[in-house]
Amino acid sequence: MTMTDKEKNTAVLRASKSFDVRFSEVDSMQVVWHGSYALYFEDAREAFGAKYDLGYMLISDNGYFAPLVDLSYQFRRPVTYGQKCRIDIFYRPTAAAKIIFDYEIRDEETDELLTTGRSVQVFMDKNYNLVLYDPPFYAEWKKRWLGTDNQLELL
Amino acid sequence: MTMTDKEKNTAVLRASKSFDVRFSEVDSMQVVWHGSYALYFEDAREAFGAKYDLGYMLISDNGYFAPLVDLSYQFRRPVTYGQKCRIDIFYRPTAAAKIIFDYEIRDEETDELLTTGRSVQVFMDKNYNLVLYDPPFYAEWKKRWLGTDNQLELL
Amino acid sequence: MTMTDKEKNTAVLRASKSFDVRFSEVDSMQVVWHGSYALYFEDAREAFGAKYDLGYMLISDNGYFAPLVDLSYQFRRPVTYGQKCRIDIFYRPTAAAKIIFDYEIRDEETDELLTTGRSVQVFMDKNYNLVLYDPPFYAEWKKRWLGTDNQLELL
Amino acid sequence: MTMTDKEKNTAVLRASKSFDVRFSEVDSMQVVWHGSYALYFEDAREAFGAKYDLGYMLISDNGYFAPLVDLSYQFRRPVTYGQKCRIDIFYRPTAAAKIIFDYEIRDEETDELLTTGRSVQVFMDKNYNLVLYDPPFYAEWKKRWLGTDNQLELL
Repeated sequence: MTMTDKEKNTAVLRASKSFDVRFSEVDSMQVVWHGSYALYFEDAREAFGAKYDLGYMLISDNGYFAPLVDLSYQFRRPVTYGQKCRIDIFYRPTAAAKIIFDYEIRDEETDELLTTGRSVQVFMDKNYNLVLYDPPFYAEWKKRWLGTDNQLELL
Repeated sequence: MTMTDKEKNTAVLRASKSFDVRFSEVDSMQVVWHGSYALYFEDAREAFGAKYDLGYMLISDNGYFAPLVDLSYQFRRPVTYGQKCRIDIFYRPTAAAKIIFDYEIRDEETDELLTTGRSVQVFMDKNYNLVLYDPPFYAEWKKRWLGTDNQLELL
Repeated sequence: MTMTDKEKNTAVLRASKSFDVRFSEVDSMQVVWHGSYALYFEDAREAFGAKYDLGYMLISDNGYFAPLVDLSYQFRRPVTYGQKCRIDIFYRPTAAAKIIFDYEIRDEETDELLTTGRSVQVFMDKNYNLVLYDPPFYAEWKKRWLGTDNQLELL
Repeated sequence: MTMTDKEKNTAVLRASKSFDVRFSEVDSMQVVWHGSYALYFEDAREAFGAKYDLGYMLISDNGYFAPLVDLSYQFRRPVTYGQKCRIDIFYRPTAAAKIIFDYEIRDEETDELLTTGRSVQVFMDKNYNLVLYDPPFYAEWKKRWLGTDNQLELL
């Protein structure tokens, strides 16, 4: 499920964050516990949100939640305590009322690909009803960052 | 900071919960990571709340939060993956508007004392103002479980 | 990615675990934080390992690790604090040197399906080399639980 | 248990780390869950270890563990999602074979004190035996950073 070159080219919006592996994130096998990756992915979304103004606060202030509905990881190489890593997050345009991100974790020094993943978020209003069309603030956000004549394909 | 016999005798309200150590709770030194104990203590408070009807829900439904203001652990013996343990929680009566618990984690089979600790919670109203006197629901709770003529000392 | 009836029928090995949602597992949106599901899935694997004698200890004692290489979640319905849930774990037979599980989290009372997921583990020896064929202990385990003439398809 | 001025003056070794509160660290009461502070304290120890060359790796490479035996928190003010914070860690000299740290978390902008705490670590050899005297590498570390004629009091 690695992104193709075509997909990477369409991911015009991307952000990165460097991080050190915490002691608490490593398990008794001396490698990062798989559950810890949720934190790295979350940090990546925060970095993306800060860079492109699409954070939890904005979503919440506009009256919505954006819960994760799909989340997947491919752990290609173990990550160890003390390793310097970088996570890259790629926004995947979609016509659906969703926020889709791809992720890549790499060794900061060698650039070796360690982990990939994807998350899909939908929108719910404050009554926990699923929203089938882009909320107005998200439609504006898309227009601002992706352009009005952007050709989007349903994923 | 182990409880004295006198203290244990006054802890008329107590609950217990058995638990297995999860793989994710163990660190690369093969013992339970110190941060994981927050979960065990929380489980103990839940067990106490369920037994004596003093759970988060009750507190919240009555319009209060009960945030932790003090929390301490003494780790006497390492706890390892696969170990069968039991946590005992003791309610410490106090005249202050607080909920104070002592905790003891023991090996389920040998009864060896592994960890002790204490937590102190205060009450805040929904505007995050500290409440200096027992909220009515808590005063009633105390009357119900500790009796009306209970002699309490300020801790 | 829900299992088909055919798939469920082939999942002859399954285990279940009931659980209460912990306070610490709920996020500021009042629902279980997506990262917490790693714990539920882990608990399910532990329950399976205990029932069918395929735990971390056995794997480790035989000189192997079984790291997760693929992990995916589909969050269908939010799970809330206080909700009584049950996780079912299904072993998916495969001719590959892998351990594959499917997961379903359901409301204990209504049986409503809340979350599904899948994990794939491979085997590594103590030098962190990937093992391409079933380690002997795992081959024996398969023979014991799945039978010798079991027709397995590569997934 | 705030440090006195005298104590702060003797804490000649200190480090700091700025951090943003993660979404996953906030609970359903919209404030940082108490268990999350273990991560902040750990980050502070890492920052200290990196600055003064006293990290897990050094300890482990010298044949020791340094498990926490005492850990305490005082939560003075709630910390919220999006808040910019700073944690300061102070090394407390002691003649005992221990590593003692005090911690202070402050609002990065207002400098308001939000949380204090203390951790105490002892040394164990690889056979999990408690070490009653400073391991040689730690004695050298003390000499290097604290000076030879340092007057230390037993805590």
